[in-house]
Amino acid sequence: MDTLETLFDSLRAAQIELALHDRHRKDTALAGAMAAIDGDRAAILAANGLDVERARAGGMKEALVDRLLLSGKRIDNIIEGIAAVIRLDDPIGRVKAGWTLPNGLLVEQITVPLGVAAIIYESRPNVTADAFSLAYKAGCAILLRGSSAARESNRALAAAITRGLAETGGVPGAAALTSAESRDEVDQILNARGKIDVVLPRGGRDLIRRVTDNARVPVIETGEGNCHIYVEPSAPIDQAVDIIANAKLQKPGACNAVETLLIRRDALAALMPPLAERLAGRAELRCDGPSKAAVSGSLPPGLVLQDAAEEDWSAEFLDYILAVKTVDSLDEAVNHINRYGTRHSEAILTNDLRAAEDFVRRVDAACVYTNASTRFTDGGEFGFGAELGISTQKFHARGPMGLEALTTIKYRISGSGQIRQ
Amino acid sequence: MDTLETLFDSLRAAQIELALHDRHRKDTALAGAMAAIDGDRAAILAANGLDVERARAGGMKEALVDRLLLSGKRIDNIIEGIAAVIRLDDPIGRVKAGWTLPNGLLVEQITVPLGVAAIIYESRPNVTADAFSLAYKAGCAILLRGSSAARESNRALAAAITRGLAETGGVPGAAALTSAESRDEVDQILNARGKIDVVLPRGGRDLIRRVTDNARVPVIETGEGNCHIYVEPSAPIDQAVDIIANAKLQKPGACNAVETLLIRRDALAALMPPLAERLAGRAELRCDGPSKAAVSGSLPPGLVLQDAAEEDWSAEFLDYILAVKTVDSLDEAVNHINRYGTRHSEAILTNDLRAAEDFVRRVDAACVYTNASTRFTDGGEFGFGAELGISTQKFHARGPMGLEALTTIKYRISGSGQIRQ
Repeated sequence: MDTLETLFDSLRAAQIELALHDRHRKDTALAGAMAAIDGDRAAILAANGLDVERARAGGMKEALVDRLLLSGKRIDNIIEGIAAVIRLDDPIGRVKAGWTLPNGLLVEQITVPLGVAAIIYESRPNVTADAFSLAYKAGCAILLRGSSAARESNRALAAAITRGLAETGGVPGAAALTSAESRDEVDQILNARGKIDVVLPRGGRDLIRRVTDNARVPVIETGEGNCHIYVEPSAPIDQAVDIIANAKLQKPGACNAVETLLIRRDALAALMPPLAERLAGRAELRCDGPSKAAVSGSLPPGLVLQDAAEEDWSAEFLDYILAVKTVDSLDEAVNHINRYGTRHSEAILTNDLRAAEDFVRRVDAACVYTNASTRFTDGGEFGFGAELGISTQKFHARGPMGLEALTTIKYRISGSGQIRQ
Repeated sequence: MDTLETLFDSLRAAQIELALHDRHRKDTALAGAMAAIDGDRAAILAANGLDVERARAGGMKEALVDRLLLSGKRIDNIIEGIAAVIRLDDPIGRVKAGWTLPNGLLVEQITVPLGVAAIIYESRPNVTADAFSLAYKAGCAILLRGSSAARESNRALAAAITRGLAETGGVPGAAALTSAESRDEVDQILNARGKIDVVLPRGGRDLIRRVTDNARVPVIETGEGNCHIYVEPSAPIDQAVDIIANAKLQKPGACNAVETLLIRRDALAALMPPLAERLAGRAELRCDGPSKAAVSGSLPPGLVLQDAAEEDWSAEFLDYILAVKTVDSLDEAVNHINRYGTRHSEAILTNDLRAAEDFVRRVDAACVYTNASTRFTDGGEFGFGAELGISTQKFHARGPMGLEALTTIKYRISGSGQIRQ
């Protein structure tokens, strides 16, 4: 327990120091970390080999072992990730607003680092380098709590990062890896009010739930996406089929993939047959009665067609499965989304201007689309350069998060002797 | 227990409705609430009379009874407070940023209401109307949890507000008063994840601690202010004395009043005698050795001069008491502030440009002043029109909070058939 408290204090001290470094100095240190990882390739791959061996011996599924596995190419990607962060503008020291009061006081809002962040993440070792580099650029110290499965890989990466920072005038103490030995450690992080300024959980639903349910420090909740596309008859059918197929098939494991399609009853006849044809052999459809009836006349070969159950409306399948529900109005679509959705990404396909505006105003979600695939909800796609995750909460950060999510503001008030009357 | 759950649901429904009201409609409803309070003056004063009688019978101190007490003039102020909120710009529907992606997608950040807020507050009944009107303008529903001491007054005010909203096409369910009968109620509010989007505690240190220690929903922490003024020898002495006297004496019970003065050793001889003269008979000084020695040669009549103890550096006196400490450098001043301060309002008095810049960068606080009184940290003074409080946290809101603290953003993404490659 003591060790972690010591770590909190050293992170705070490092953060106070790092907050004073200008962009040039931060970028130089990031380049140092990058070079150190490049120089330590052999050691990192050897450490990763130990993790992978232990994981396989413990019976880990190969799909999960693949998440853990590093290769020369994957180390290239880690290094390129840091290079991309170096290219980003400094989020610190921006004057967001400023005005002069009647008494002559100049009031300015200036961006400053949020402080000490903690990230609790699952097996992918690349998160170690990604999270470190984003936090460092934002002037934040970061506590890295990876999974025990990736222990050796994370240690090797963290050692390289620390050495790289030390060799280039950076703040080596600004990134610290926990031992990842006990669950108590996680509880201690989640309760460290005043020590940890934000916790970022990155991983599956269970991890995120555990963090949000237990944290006493601020959390940015990310990830869960039960996304919908609502189709009206005025939408061009070919375009609608393209968008739905893209949102379902391009990467079904992504949180911004569509899970439920809502179709206005008077669009069923035109949309369902070509959609069924496009998805046949590629995704299973779980239909309500009317949408099923609209295709059952001419089932394309290879189509898997099931009856939708109530639990399908709440499901984040993360798989080649699409639930389909018939609605009688935009109103019904909006109510369904606000009831079952996870406030992530929602789309309307329509050529009706008023319907588009109503949908955007009434759907409560981080990202609301008209006539585009939900798959664009992503920091990279939005032009943020790097992504900390996609916030599904409303407090502090919402939607794809760039570096700004790790900043706060400070008021600078410049006077010449003003006193309050 | 059931009652409060029902209230949460009806607040959510009301908030969804209110979010669609434009400024004109919200302002009309606020004017309705204002008129209803004006029309109910007799009933409100009668209800307040019952609270005051019960408070006095229970032995409440007169200073606290005064906080509870309403009068014709105080009802005028409540009404004027709502009128001021009506004059504020609508914080909702602002396009904060917007850009077009290379594929033609238009991405816009639009302000939307944060959702359902809860305020937990102590005896002043004016908070009932203030909090309601600010939340309503921001499109948020609000749960009002006043103290049991103000039960009848709050009921009368809330009844007028509800009637005023109903009579003018507003959303009467957007403001709901709890029964304030039990402490379980507070625990239920603090645990209502997904039902309550933010909790605002308003009151003394104990209330705020209890809320921040127990909340499982987002909280905006306000209020505690252990503020410092650090003086260098290059500061004009008359101006320094004016600023210190203003920051200590103008309203010592305010969170932005100065509590500890830090004086660079080589400024003691010039500053301490005129400062002691100014504060003699008006504020007690609690000095360390060197600052005490600097005045003890010629004690002005009426000066109360004590030795400072370690606990004085942590104290928020909220009284006519000023702790004085000698430091050898700006470095020592900054470290003292970052160790003992509450991240509220801090000032440097100097004519040294580099010192001013260093102080502003290195002090971690919501508001950092050069050459002005700390007393300006206030939403009204900053030009926000109305104030929700002064956030001493870094997450979501920092410093004086206007309506913007009750907003979040939504991304609107407008396409013409874009799919992700």
